[in-house]
Amino acid sequence: MAAAADEALFELLRIPSISALPEHADDVERARQLVVDRLRRLGFEIELAPGVISAEWMGRPGKPVLGIYGHYDVQPPDPLDLWETPPFEPTVRDGYVYARGAVDNKGQLVANLMAVEGAFAEGGPPVNVRFLIEGEEEIGGRSLPDFVRANAERLPTDYMSLIDGYFVAPGIPSLITALRGLLYVEIEVTGPAVDLHSGMFGGVAPNPFNSLVWMLAGLKDRGGRVLIPGFYDSWRAPTKEEIESWSKLPYGEEARLLATMGARALEGESDFTPIERIWARPTLDVHGIRGGFIGEGQKTVIPSQALAKVSMRLVPDQDPEEILASLRSHLSTLATPGVSFEVRVMSMTRPVLCGVDHPGVAAARRAYAAAFGSEPVLAREGGSVPVSLELQEALGAKMIVSGFGLPDDGMHSPNERFSLDQFHRGIEFTERLMHELAAD
Amino acid sequence: MAAAADEALFELLRIPSISALPEHADDVERARQLVVDRLRRLGFEIELAPGVISAEWMGRPGKPVLGIYGHYDVQPPDPLDLWETPPFEPTVRDGYVYARGAVDNKGQLVANLMAVEGAFAEGGPPVNVRFLIEGEEEIGGRSLPDFVRANAERLPTDYMSLIDGYFVAPGIPSLITALRGLLYVEIEVTGPAVDLHSGMFGGVAPNPFNSLVWMLAGLKDRGGRVLIPGFYDSWRAPTKEEIESWSKLPYGEEARLLATMGARALEGESDFTPIERIWARPTLDVHGIRGGFIGEGQKTVIPSQALAKVSMRLVPDQDPEEILASLRSHLSTLATPGVSFEVRVMSMTRPVLCGVDHPGVAAARRAYAAAFGSEPVLAREGGSVPVSLELQEALGAKMIVSGFGLPDDGMHSPNERFSLDQFHRGIEFTERLMHELAAD
Repeated sequence: MAAAADEALFELLRIPSISALPEHADDVERARQLVVDRLRRLGFEIELAPGVISAEWMGRPGKPVLGIYGHYDVQPPDPLDLWETPPFEPTVRDGYVYARGAVDNKGQLVANLMAVEGAFAEGGPPVNVRFLIEGEEEIGGRSLPDFVRANAERLPTDYMSLIDGYFVAPGIPSLITALRGLLYVEIEVTGPAVDLHSGMFGGVAPNPFNSLVWMLAGLKDRGGRVLIPGFYDSWRAPTKEEIESWSKLPYGEEARLLATMGARALEGESDFTPIERIWARPTLDVHGIRGGFIGEGQKTVIPSQALAKVSMRLVPDQDPEEILASLRSHLSTLATPGVSFEVRVMSMTRPVLCGVDHPGVAAARRAYAAAFGSEPVLAREGGSVPVSLELQEALGAKMIVSGFGLPDDGMHSPNERFSLDQFHRGIEFTERLMHELAAD
Repeated sequence: MAAAADEALFELLRIPSISALPEHADDVERARQLVVDRLRRLGFEIELAPGVISAEWMGRPGKPVLGIYGHYDVQPPDPLDLWETPPFEPTVRDGYVYARGAVDNKGQLVANLMAVEGAFAEGGPPVNVRFLIEGEEEIGGRSLPDFVRANAERLPTDYMSLIDGYFVAPGIPSLITALRGLLYVEIEVTGPAVDLHSGMFGGVAPNPFNSLVWMLAGLKDRGGRVLIPGFYDSWRAPTKEEIESWSKLPYGEEARLLATMGARALEGESDFTPIERIWARPTLDVHGIRGGFIGEGQKTVIPSQALAKVSMRLVPDQDPEEILASLRSHLSTLATPGVSFEVRVMSMTRPVLCGVDHPGVAAARRAYAAAFGSEPVLAREGGSVPVSLELQEALGAKMIVSGFGLPDDGMHSPNERFSLDQFHRGIEFTERLMHELAAD
């Protein structure tokens, strides 16, 4: 069984289903087809929409409906030269499989699929099962969220298992009480109409880079505090109990974070602990700056345009729309008179608070204890799963947000990996979860 | 004659001799070979070194030696999509030839070559002629400057004609009294050892971009004043006479500059006129920023490294070595604790002051009047010609720094062009210059 499960995972990992790169559209489609074929063979009723797989098996009338979320798209693998083995040739070393998407999210998705396949081999799952799977998670696509909102009435779901996260430390599973939201923008600055020679125009030309660096430097102070007016106004402090329980976790230890990142010092707001900064504080990061000359050698160009990719991780109760409006007006005070600029929204996801006092979470606790030998701790999630809001609000599903990854699995980094032991225990977790929910 | 000269120019323009791009090394070599072949056919004695053509014809004992400088390498043509016709397919429209290198410097170099070829067709030049030509001007290469310094004794030169500039306005030639120097650096900032996911590490990771934008924003204030300590200490103000004569030139008119640049406002130090800012003030510009994710779509990466290309145009009497040292120490106060950074020097050229009270300049005045119908004005040059310092200092040559381009020829920009009328009159200028020098 483990060998067959491994092969099912590797097969999916071999497909470079990079949703951010249009040239990989066929690969994203191939990955979807592979998942669809597996579900169809089990007898699931399947509905497809662009970027969406909706599949249900309602063979247990009177039993609860367990929803399972996952995504088959992955992040781009660059920088390629830092991979020890090719990102789309899954390779096993020391009990880990290395590949882009190994942990995020193919490994966790396939663990769920294998659990359900295993249940069918033994007479069918003890609960009804609904898969809601997407191919646009890594680009903040709206297809699945919009599908869920539009079709909520015919997608009844009692519990929604969202397995896209990780243990807070080896041996310590987590149940997530909140996910950060995301506001991802491109800031494009235009100076002169054409590229200019700095020898002829340096001193009078409005260089969009010079303006852009003032704009970006004006978004965050050196202490890590975001300077967009009103940015923190709606921030809801975590409860005292949350903060106390977090302080006992090894996850936020400075030495661990420094070692994982390979960094010489932490940055960010020093009046909050590292774990509070990751789980409960909003942040802002520049991801890339485009324009001008970045080849080898030198070119003394004053370019016409420069563009920055910037995102903000948001926490309850920040509203991305309000923050976007404040960002735009703040940037207009920072831009220099010689340039114009445009802010384009790439994606926008509201932060989510998940309740943890329902039978689904109790069932998940027991399933974790059985499969992994330890109870999960309550934690938050620094990342975002855009659809989680719709799953909770439109479906009214009780959320079970968790994950089988380990903190140093390199999600979004070169040499991303997934422990095969975690994978196999993850399959067992979902098998147990179904039985626990059926028994309730 | 004009048709043959045009064909000689187009032949050189067809070669993409882009010195900044290693994949064009063969093209740079082809361009050199073409120039060498022309000079060899005339009977020049030729010495070659990597990146250097040194050629002399000493057929007029007792007459002065006129040195002629030029370069056969060009800037990269990007952004390619803004060219109306391909950059290496010279195309004539409305009396201009459009191509990368048309004005900088192939057109001006070929004008000099044609003048000398014409003189040979009529019994040989009336003065001795030395060509010093390079293929590394656009990358600030040291080959020709080092060659000149090492071999100065056997390269006697009375006057050095450096035709790499432009008229201050149509009909108004210029003689250059000073050239700006250049300090071009790469600033590479390293944060974490690997690329990270901002959802997992945003709030604690030292993002090199966040640090880099503070560093760059700290190099120059919003008024255009450079903030590197001591940057202006050695600045030598232009003379009152220079400032007065400049104020009468259309070159620095705001409306003209705005129209040429296609910009909505000038930037830079408001306590200096635009022309003073271009010719007599040092400047600093960011040319490009590399690192992270700049593709289509979104990736929430906190990259390991970010790199900025930055150059400073320097003026008399700034010393690039001193400024580099101050830049390094200033950056270390701006960088955040979580990152390390490295400053790599790409090129370094001292600014040059040229005397204009020698017989060569007087001869050039008469040659301009004859060929173009108007006397040149005294001006400065915002750009840099790295070798000019060696030509003046090591050779002891009296400098004649001038140019046949027009201000809107788009040097270093898409759709670079050169007026064929200026080209033909430029040939006549050099013919006249040789005769004026012979007659002195």
